[in-house]
Amino acid sequence: MIEGNPHFSLLDREYIFPIIEKKLLELQSSTDDEIVNAGIGDIALPLAPTIAKAICDAVIEMSISKKPFGYGPSEGYLFLREAIRNNSYKNFTTDEIFISDGINTDILSILDLFKDSCTIAIPTPAYPAYLDATILSGKKDQIIEMPCTFETGFIPELPEKRVDIIYLTSPHNPTGVAMPKDRLRRFVEFAKSHGSIILYDGAYESFISSNCPKTIYEVEGAEEVALEFRSFSKSAGFTGLRCSYTVIPKSVQITVSNKFTSLNLLWKKRQSIKFNGVAYPIQKGAFACFSQDGSKEISEQVQIYKNEARTLLNGLLKLEHTCFGGIDSPYIWWKAPEALSSWEFFDLLLKRCHLVTVPGIGFGKHGDGYVRLSTFMHPGVAEKALSRISHL
Amino acid sequence: MIEGNPHFSLLDREYIFPIIEKKLLELQSSTDDEIVNAGIGDIALPLAPTIAKAICDAVIEMSISKKPFGYGPSEGYLFLREAIRNNSYKNFTTDEIFISDGINTDILSILDLFKDSCTIAIPTPAYPAYLDATILSGKKDQIIEMPCTFETGFIPELPEKRVDIIYLTSPHNPTGVAMPKDRLRRFVEFAKSHGSIILYDGAYESFISSNCPKTIYEVEGAEEVALEFRSFSKSAGFTGLRCSYTVIPKSVQITVSNKFTSLNLLWKKRQSIKFNGVAYPIQKGAFACFSQDGSKEISEQVQIYKNEARTLLNGLLKLEHTCFGGIDSPYIWWKAPEALSSWEFFDLLLKRCHLVTVPGIGFGKHGDGYVRLSTFMHPGVAEKALSRISHL
Repeated sequence: MIEGNPHFSLLDREYIFPIIEKKLLELQSSTDDEIVNAGIGDIALPLAPTIAKAICDAVIEMSISKKPFGYGPSEGYLFLREAIRNNSYKNFTTDEIFISDGINTDILSILDLFKDSCTIAIPTPAYPAYLDATILSGKKDQIIEMPCTFETGFIPELPEKRVDIIYLTSPHNPTGVAMPKDRLRRFVEFAKSHGSIILYDGAYESFISSNCPKTIYEVEGAEEVALEFRSFSKSAGFTGLRCSYTVIPKSVQITVSNKFTSLNLLWKKRQSIKFNGVAYPIQKGAFACFSQDGSKEISEQVQIYKNEARTLLNGLLKLEHTCFGGIDSPYIWWKAPEALSSWEFFDLLLKRCHLVTVPGIGFGKHGDGYVRLSTFMHPGVAEKALSRISHL
Repeated sequence: MIEGNPHFSLLDREYIFPIIEKKLLELQSSTDDEIVNAGIGDIALPLAPTIAKAICDAVIEMSISKKPFGYGPSEGYLFLREAIRNNSYKNFTTDEIFISDGINTDILSILDLFKDSCTIAIPTPAYPAYLDATILSGKKDQIIEMPCTFETGFIPELPEKRVDIIYLTSPHNPTGVAMPKDRLRRFVEFAKSHGSIILYDGAYESFISSNCPKTIYEVEGAEEVALEFRSFSKSAGFTGLRCSYTVIPKSVQITVSNKFTSLNLLWKKRQSIKFNGVAYPIQKGAFACFSQDGSKEISEQVQIYKNEARTLLNGLLKLEHTCFGGIDSPYIWWKAPEALSSWEFFDLLLKRCHLVTVPGIGFGKHGDGYVRLSTFMHPGVAEKALSRISHL
């Protein structure tokens, strides 16, 4: 019988979402009360009308055009790469931007480009797929953890030793804290002096309203050491539509069998083999995010989520709870009182407040003792959650 | 400096499409004659109206529904998996079917599930990504070639020795020949007796009109050793929309660290980590392929391509050319006359007939001496190609 990838047996993380789901169903069967869901970080508002129209227009175009709309370029259509460049990356060229179906896909698949023995720094707690995909690729013993705790201001400290690859997220998930420029600069300097590459996950950049950088390229020299991953998922309600983009500057160099090459070229080759591009109508929908109407509509949605975050954060602080994040992010990182574990606090909130959260342990061991609140909510939901919490 | 994946330097295949593109542009700049494109195997007809309407309806639903359409299940929506099951896989359960954005994605990513040392049988000539992805994953020295030549009837012979994984395609690409049941049965028996797993690529199954099996599961016992990959790309014009499905029977077993497990479970875990699903509207479009109108429209399109294939094949044979395929497939495998190489024959056809083909060498060394004709054509194009070929 064939032997499978042995690293599957090293995935020892508890998969929390099925457990949350089960607990939620149990509660739903015993109460008529509306349950407030601040759990999974998924959108709450409908698709913006300008984006919906753009997708439909593209589909109709596909159904009437004499020129067939078959395979698109694996790196994405030029119209979208140009719009992204002009909007956010004026110092780059369009062939340094790659369209994908999700940050998740690219930020994990990028590991294909590196030697098996590469070392990888991962924040903890963090978005769990970084760790899982690294383990699955056989690199469990090459992981260096970067704690994101109260002591580190809930953003990662520099790795303790040289490392090949560094995963960074700002604003960080689950702590909801964005990295100030000086902290980010330390990472860029570390990468430059140690020959590391930074994989910078900017999934939530559109929620940043402080003066923290919205892109790592605000830091001088970052274009030599950093890749940036962004998505329409949270900024434009695309979690069900799947479109993201990856910036790979040509100046990020690597050696392959002792020859210098750019990571950009390797990725282009990898994508041409393993990826057939994102659906044309979805790319047209993403393109509409840069139109006047589209951009206004999606900004309004982000503002609604940010307002809920502010309401919830301020309310919790007023009730003398200990909370972090929520300013530059749709996530609030809430410390469990009285040394409760994250699952105990989760259970308490679910039972007593009918409020769904995510236990921090689901993001790694340093997340225990916290829960994450997502504020992807309709207007007024944060107030409702607060009124229940106030009776706790 | 970081070291990259050294296997990139082992990719020694010539990337033919950029070369074809360049030659085509040169010709276009020197002639006003319309060039007949029988090159890349991409659709020629517009998107069927019932599918277009279903996608638009889904997008409108996303823009007005109170219930948000965020992340879908990574394995695909149940409505689509049920329709696929009921249409083609009645002996399977819906959780043995996984929706993806392309056969290419899944049939290459599935290598993640196996031990690094696994051996892999690949037909030659074949769809080039099998070989490239296998090389990139560090398994170049573990490849066993299965020639698909005149001597083998243009479908693969059994591997010469035991192998872990076997790539099969029927109808085969590029030769356009489908596997008869007895040939397929030999592979299933080989896999059962040697503990191998077959990765069966059925991208072109909807073109089979002979009595060759449309699914490997027509062969008894295949559900213990075979995975099947199918797509809406060629059957329903989805190359620009991206939707496919993968059947992983629970009865396909594997060991992980000496424990028995099902490949189905491993894939489910892998997907939950590395894949966020296909866009909801695209899945609704795929679902519409199973409606009465949708199914009629897409069958008509396949019939148009099949008619062109028949016209072209019969015409070429009448002109006493040596051709294969074209009956169960949109591809005709055309032997170059007078011992020309595939590039020489390509150049001749391009210059003298203004006809674009694909040189067989692009599919592997055993493809030299042939060109592939794609018959994804508007009605009448095959006749036009023939009249030019007749003056050759």
